[in-house]
Amino acid sequence: MKYKAGFCQFKPEFMAKEKNLETMVNLVSKTKADLIVFPELATSGYTFINLSEVEQVAETFQKGLTYIVMKKAAWDNNCSIVLGFVEEDAGNFYNSAMLINPDGSSYLYRKTHLFLHEKSFFSPGDTGFQVFPAKNNIKIGIMICFDWIFPEAARSLMLNGAQIIAHPANLVLPWCQQAMLTRSIENRVFTITANRTGVEKNNSLSNAFTGQSQITSPLGERLLQADDSSQITGIFDIFPEIADNKSVTAMNDLITDRRQKYYHS
Amino acid sequence: MKYKAGFCQFKPEFMAKEKNLETMVNLVSKTKADLIVFPELATSGYTFINLSEVEQVAETFQKGLTYIVMKKAAWDNNCSIVLGFVEEDAGNFYNSAMLINPDGSSYLYRKTHLFLHEKSFFSPGDTGFQVFPAKNNIKIGIMICFDWIFPEAARSLMLNGAQIIAHPANLVLPWCQQAMLTRSIENRVFTITANRTGVEKNNSLSNAFTGQSQITSPLGERLLQADDSSQITGIFDIFPEIADNKSVTAMNDLITDRRQKYYHS
Repeated sequence: MKYKAGFCQFKPEFMAKEKNLETMVNLVSKTKADLIVFPELATSGYTFINLSEVEQVAETFQKGLTYIVMKKAAWDNNCSIVLGFVEEDAGNFYNSAMLINPDGSSYLYRKTHLFLHEKSFFSPGDTGFQVFPAKNNIKIGIMICFDWIFPEAARSLMLNGAQIIAHPANLVLPWCQQAMLTRSIENRVFTITANRTGVEKNNSLSNAFTGQSQITSPLGERLLQADDSSQITGIFDIFPEIADNKSVTAMNDLITDRRQKYYHS
Repeated sequence: MKYKAGFCQFKPEFMAKEKNLETMVNLVSKTKADLIVFPELATSGYTFINLSEVEQVAETFQKGLTYIVMKKAAWDNNCSIVLGFVEEDAGNFYNSAMLINPDGSSYLYRKTHLFLHEKSFFSPGDTGFQVFPAKNNIKIGIMICFDWIFPEAARSLMLNGAQIIAHPANLVLPWCQQAMLTRSIENRVFTITANRTGVEKNNSLSNAFTGQSQITSPLGERLLQADDSSQITGIFDIFPEIADNKSVTAMNDLITDRRQKYYHS
């Protein structure tokens, strides 16, 4: 089944949740897609320097403004949406992403591998690498930004059945966009990396984000890639069921050829 | 400590073990190196069509001609050598690689993930992903060719302490040389892929090998790469202890940041 999937790359404004949500709703409304992935921490920006800032933008999953607004956007546009946000739960804060479907169902992922200063504000994710149904029952796995460097993240999502890995990101290191081609070919999955752009400063901290959001295929192809600075939506017609075929050759299958007893856990 | 490590890329002649060994000894003698990696099945060629051919070139580890000749070459040139060969043990055949050190010590790896027709002749490897001491006690992990596509192979070698992954190969697919950059950066290890060149035909079977042997660094750099057809030796001065540092940032370490409880085994 042809499936229009892709990313919205933009530059969230720091601490301006309502403005960012307005931008996101506007971007979704201009796009005919079945699945759209937004960056990590898309509603809040990234460069926190104290917990008070984190608290100000945090939301409880399925209760906050972001959930309400994006649930409506998913319904209005008949589109599944993945986006990163600051989550609060029982006094803990998580760097999380939600999947919201047109039918109103929604799912949560909490970033497993925190990067640098994130460790000062966020609790490490405890949701693991679950796979969720998106529009048309396509199987979506979510990982966030720095999760990419741990091959176990994408691997776990593939072994749990993901056809598409939605990958909200705020990338500052140079290697990820290339490495995601390897993640695709070693797991035979589609990946959608939605990265943000711009330089974000907060007192002495400054982050320069690399853009170049992209869509990759189970055959290790880069189907589409954005530049490093534009606000841009990239959508590609993919066939998610291609990801169900793990055959590399007539005699090699990426799942049945695995030999777990020899793998270091 | 500066360590001269690299590959000899060449075109083994099918079934001509003595001639191939002569070529290999000649290549080692012309090279000043601490570690040299030769391709997969370097002594025999690759394109077997029946077990009789496999039997003719098979050797018992630490007993056959290859072992005797290459042990002398390691001693004569004060160089650790990794090379692929057909191994016979208790009536089983393995696509194996041996590490032979100047001090006469030697170690065995049997290919874990067999590719295509190899499954018709070879038993799947049962040695796992051990790490061995090479010259100057540098820690070497070995994986062979198609092992590259399973992230667990390089990961297991890294977790077992490898500083350098020696990767004898007979590559025919297009993705490996790029993917090894990801293997390097996700594990912070050096990798040396020694690939063969040439087209090898045997009755109806034909294989075209891709050359482009390379050395990559723990920072995901391609330090050196051969072309796709030359007989060529590539040696680079590396500092293997760089691979002991798994820090990505001041707050991120590739080993201690792992969260095994969430990984699918």
